[in-house]
Amino acid sequence: MNIEQKNGSTVFKKTSDYKPGRNWRNYLIGRPLQTADAPQQTIGKFLGLAVFSSDALSSVAYAPQELLLILSVAGVSAFHIAFPLAIAICILLAILILSYEQTIHAYPDGGGAYIVARDNLGEIPAETAGAALLTDYILTVAVSVSSGVAQLVSAFPALFPHRVIIAVVLVMLVMVINLRGVKESGTFFAIPTYYFLVVMYLTIIVGFIRFFTGSLGLVPNAPQDVLNLHQTLEPITLFLILKAFSSGTTALTGVEAISNGITAFKEPRSTNAGRTLIIMGAILGSMMLSITYLANKMGALPSEGETLISQIARTIFSGQGVLYIAVIAATTVILIMAANTAFADFPRLSAIAANDGFLPRQLTYRGSRLVFSRGIATLSVVACLLIILFQASVSKLIPLYAIGVFLSFTLSQAGMAHRWWKSGHLLADQQIKERGSTLVHEQGWQFKMVINGLGSVCTGVVMCIFAITKFKDGAWIVVLLTPLLVLIFSTIHRHYKNLAKQLSLDNFAPSPRIAHQKVIMPVSGVHKGTLAALRYAKTLSDDITAIHISSDPIETKKVQEKWELWGDGYRLVVLDSPYRLFLEPLLAYIDEIDAQKQPNEVISIVVPQFVPKHWYTSLLHTRTADTLRRVLLYRKDIVILEVPYQVN
Amino acid sequence: MNIEQKNGSTVFKKTSDYKPGRNWRNYLIGRPLQTADAPQQTIGKFLGLAVFSSDALSSVAYAPQELLLILSVAGVSAFHIAFPLAIAICILLAILILSYEQTIHAYPDGGGAYIVARDNLGEIPAETAGAALLTDYILTVAVSVSSGVAQLVSAFPALFPHRVIIAVVLVMLVMVINLRGVKESGTFFAIPTYYFLVVMYLTIIVGFIRFFTGSLGLVPNAPQDVLNLHQTLEPITLFLILKAFSSGTTALTGVEAISNGITAFKEPRSTNAGRTLIIMGAILGSMMLSITYLANKMGALPSEGETLISQIARTIFSGQGVLYIAVIAATTVILIMAANTAFADFPRLSAIAANDGFLPRQLTYRGSRLVFSRGIATLSVVACLLIILFQASVSKLIPLYAIGVFLSFTLSQAGMAHRWWKSGHLLADQQIKERGSTLVHEQGWQFKMVINGLGSVCTGVVMCIFAITKFKDGAWIVVLLTPLLVLIFSTIHRHYKNLAKQLSLDNFAPSPRIAHQKVIMPVSGVHKGTLAALRYAKTLSDDITAIHISSDPIETKKVQEKWELWGDGYRLVVLDSPYRLFLEPLLAYIDEIDAQKQPNEVISIVVPQFVPKHWYTSLLHTRTADTLRRVLLYRKDIVILEVPYQVN
Repeated sequence: MNIEQKNGSTVFKKTSDYKPGRNWRNYLIGRPLQTADAPQQTIGKFLGLAVFSSDALSSVAYAPQELLLILSVAGVSAFHIAFPLAIAICILLAILILSYEQTIHAYPDGGGAYIVARDNLGEIPAETAGAALLTDYILTVAVSVSSGVAQLVSAFPALFPHRVIIAVVLVMLVMVINLRGVKESGTFFAIPTYYFLVVMYLTIIVGFIRFFTGSLGLVPNAPQDVLNLHQTLEPITLFLILKAFSSGTTALTGVEAISNGITAFKEPRSTNAGRTLIIMGAILGSMMLSITYLANKMGALPSEGETLISQIARTIFSGQGVLYIAVIAATTVILIMAANTAFADFPRLSAIAANDGFLPRQLTYRGSRLVFSRGIATLSVVACLLIILFQASVSKLIPLYAIGVFLSFTLSQAGMAHRWWKSGHLLADQQIKERGSTLVHEQGWQFKMVINGLGSVCTGVVMCIFAITKFKDGAWIVVLLTPLLVLIFSTIHRHYKNLAKQLSLDNFAPSPRIAHQKVIMPVSGVHKGTLAALRYAKTLSDDITAIHISSDPIETKKVQEKWELWGDGYRLVVLDSPYRLFLEPLLAYIDEIDAQKQPNEVISIVVPQFVPKHWYTSLLHTRTADTLRRVLLYRKDIVILEVPYQVN
Repeated sequence: MNIEQKNGSTVFKKTSDYKPGRNWRNYLIGRPLQTADAPQQTIGKFLGLAVFSSDALSSVAYAPQELLLILSVAGVSAFHIAFPLAIAICILLAILILSYEQTIHAYPDGGGAYIVARDNLGEIPAETAGAALLTDYILTVAVSVSSGVAQLVSAFPALFPHRVIIAVVLVMLVMVINLRGVKESGTFFAIPTYYFLVVMYLTIIVGFIRFFTGSLGLVPNAPQDVLNLHQTLEPITLFLILKAFSSGTTALTGVEAISNGITAFKEPRSTNAGRTLIIMGAILGSMMLSITYLANKMGALPSEGETLISQIARTIFSGQGVLYIAVIAATTVILIMAANTAFADFPRLSAIAANDGFLPRQLTYRGSRLVFSRGIATLSVVACLLIILFQASVSKLIPLYAIGVFLSFTLSQAGMAHRWWKSGHLLADQQIKERGSTLVHEQGWQFKMVINGLGSVCTGVVMCIFAITKFKDGAWIVVLLTPLLVLIFSTIHRHYKNLAKQLSLDNFAPSPRIAHQKVIMPVSGVHKGTLAALRYAKTLSDDITAIHISSDPIETKKVQEKWELWGDGYRLVVLDSPYRLFLEPLLAYIDEIDAQKQPNEVISIVVPQFVPKHWYTSLLHTRTADTLRRVLLYRKDIVILEVPYQVN
């Protein structure tokens, strides 16, 4: 123990011996972990791809289908536009990958859109990026799980009526897994991701072989439900094409995941992360193109009942055999893994934002398993509500999705562009330490600025297209929600800043020592509890006034007689309450005393409170202390003490 | 001011100047009344009959109809049994009136079943009477209001689909009137009651004249809905007759009202009350017989759509003219008045029972208008629930009704019989002061005992008949509920008795004066709020230990540095919490200190608590003091002080 340090204060250090016991929560989510147990493992490119790409790669399970779904209002003949649109999406993907590769090198400690916007664009853009991302993580869970369930339902149509409950149960399962704490490394991620890659490429390759050898026919019994909805066909307008393009861009969600998690990579981590990003981009692009092409050629149709992946798989593998089941299983699992990614990102981002004072501080608290449990719980609950509200329909959820992602892309790239501009205006040996990274002068900053600028403009344009074309279908919810969230974040931030300022000890002159305590003790009856409170009150001061609010003369007489016997000679004020009120006369009396108070005096209200053994019996008593506390908490220099007297 | 009384205590007396302000509640229920404003008016027989008879007299609006309804399962031919049953009911009424007349003289201060059972039979019978009566007051409201609405619906069939909502609105209206406080006197009661009497007797007299002159035909278009329900007729069994008899006895509910309200009568109050009771009995009996007889002769049929009263009125007055409307209006109003009687009785009885410790004490509190507001609110809410549950159908509510009344009759009369036996065994000049009355030797106690005994046996038999014949139709609810309520009352009573015993100062030896305070002050950060708490803590003791639970080393370092600067040299214990918990390590530490405590020491936990201006911002903070208080309240000799620091 280090005694008598510096100006005389004595600081003792000790580690608590408290060990959490066993209970149902530990049973469900595992035994509590010590802070020192936090894993510090890093991973290479092979595992990195597995850990961070499930969100992006799984998009191919729904993006081509949603693209076709939009075109279907113009009839089957419009489907020939799908492949050119897929190529446009891949060009956008390439621009994004280039942009993000630069971000990864600039922010080796993690460069999510929120951090980049905060450091380079300011508070409001940071809040906007935060709001957009948090909204989109929730939608990632809802869309991915819904799409996963849709794959299952394609293989087992009997499950169709139960899809909402299955989706909710899956979200809960992922929640519990995340509350236990997933190690973002290792084979847990690698096996399903690589399994998905192998199965998907196998499907695509077999598909192309059969197509070029001419043995690939059309989808047998392709589901007609969506086509039948449109009796009169709409013309192919620019609006329709842009709307279809927007739906297809949902394939790009999840591309930013690696930039959030750079610290998980082995050194040189920026290089490793950057290369992983490029590999992921190549895989995603090739899959997107292949699936759209094959689906088109084999006449697969978008449907609520059977997914495009299911139609492709059963056509390529000629029926619902082992390989078909393998494709469905792989797709379902990768979609659930994608939801799992959001479960890593949402709590982390909300903790960062909470630490910056934009969200309630409680979100920074790490639970017993070292995860941000409150963020995890919030995410699960909201995602489940969305799933229930939208009946686990991917097509209904898609219009809300991806606006947030593209908004965050735009802000992130704009922030990066601004950063390059700042970097270009530094001297060669100058360094600026920002919160998320260190800024130095870089060669070729103009070129890099152009790349990020291009990325920002492109994604910005896509976001606008998305918001406009999907506005009526549900995008309006996000368009309204995002500014509302920004407003909430700002309000919270202002509250915390104001609080910190008011509590700050800068230029603080301590108040004079308290010279005198006035004790007021409300007494409803004289019993052991009252005397226990009086015994305590005596240690505070000799200026004690017991006060009895009288509305029943018989009761009052008893109190008075007993006080004369047991009150140790202290003052008893009997305050007659003609309206039978208790609180108001007492408060009026306290006000009176308060008005005469000296600056170095404090009023202590000592409330005798007997505490019954069982909490529910408190329904049989008026809890005076609680009521008084609620009211007096807002009054300066009044302290309420509840002296408990335990009754068995 | 009386200074220095008896053993040196100083008692000051004062009347609070607090005047309640204006708010929406005052606007709704009127300005608050001072306790001294309580009315002390007494009334004579004429007004007494009006005030106390609405419950009893209004029963004729449903009792004959419900009697016929039961008989209808055996077809129209069974209706000839109705009149003999009505005579049997009148004989029972006569016995009851005789019995209660004796109660009124024995209990000039009010002799409700609860008081008579409590004073003469003991605790469990008193609780049973209380439970039975409280249940039945609720049913009185539900049945009377439902029947009132049924009268309205008979005249205006278009209202039928809205009957539940009309009934609920009426209950709410009666609630508000009662929360304002009804003066149980004056013309408010006299006008509708005497209006009802005049209109009913007019109807009956005109009916008999037309019947005996042969000009009274059958009911035109008598409603067939109930008859059509029974395609196959049941035989007339003893069970059926007894069941019909039970339904008819609901006419006797409300007979006990006068015995509850004797104090409201002018002196000689027992004589006045007794005579009023006899007059009421005569009116009730004559109406019951007349209506049953006339209904039979004119072929009126029980129905859900049109009441018997409506059929009789439109037959006697040949159509739905002014006189018909007058009858419907009078019946509806008297039924609402009957509900109003329950609103006087339920709160009064629950306050008496609460004062005896069988119900939560809060029920004894008189609201701003000097009425037992909480009892009134409880009654309204439960009655409305019943109305909604039973869709305002009198026939569905009737099987639950009247068992409670007859149980209370039985207990009350049995108590009276026992009282006469006690009275007979006193010496001529002996007096026993019981809680509700004074017991003296009375001449002819044997005869009086026989009368009350007969009343008890008769009502007991009826109660059993009622419970058995109606068991399946809903009586089982009451049969199960009553013992459950008795159990709850006993449990509450035991709790209060135990509490009083534990708090009692009999044979109490005061604890030694507190010699030393150990102050523990949890500190999460060092700011103005912390220093305000420290300033207060210094007035308690010099033995102050600040304790910081550390789960973030950076935060801890800041706290430690600031404490060294501002902590005035007091101890700071830094308690490292490896599991990031706050409460548990702190409690473990307090336990440690607690274990070493001397008997004359007390531990005070001083919790600094900054108080934001708006309550809702408290969502953004962890309210440590609240959590600690909840846990430490149950620990002996630990006091929690929350020192508030107000932030603007």
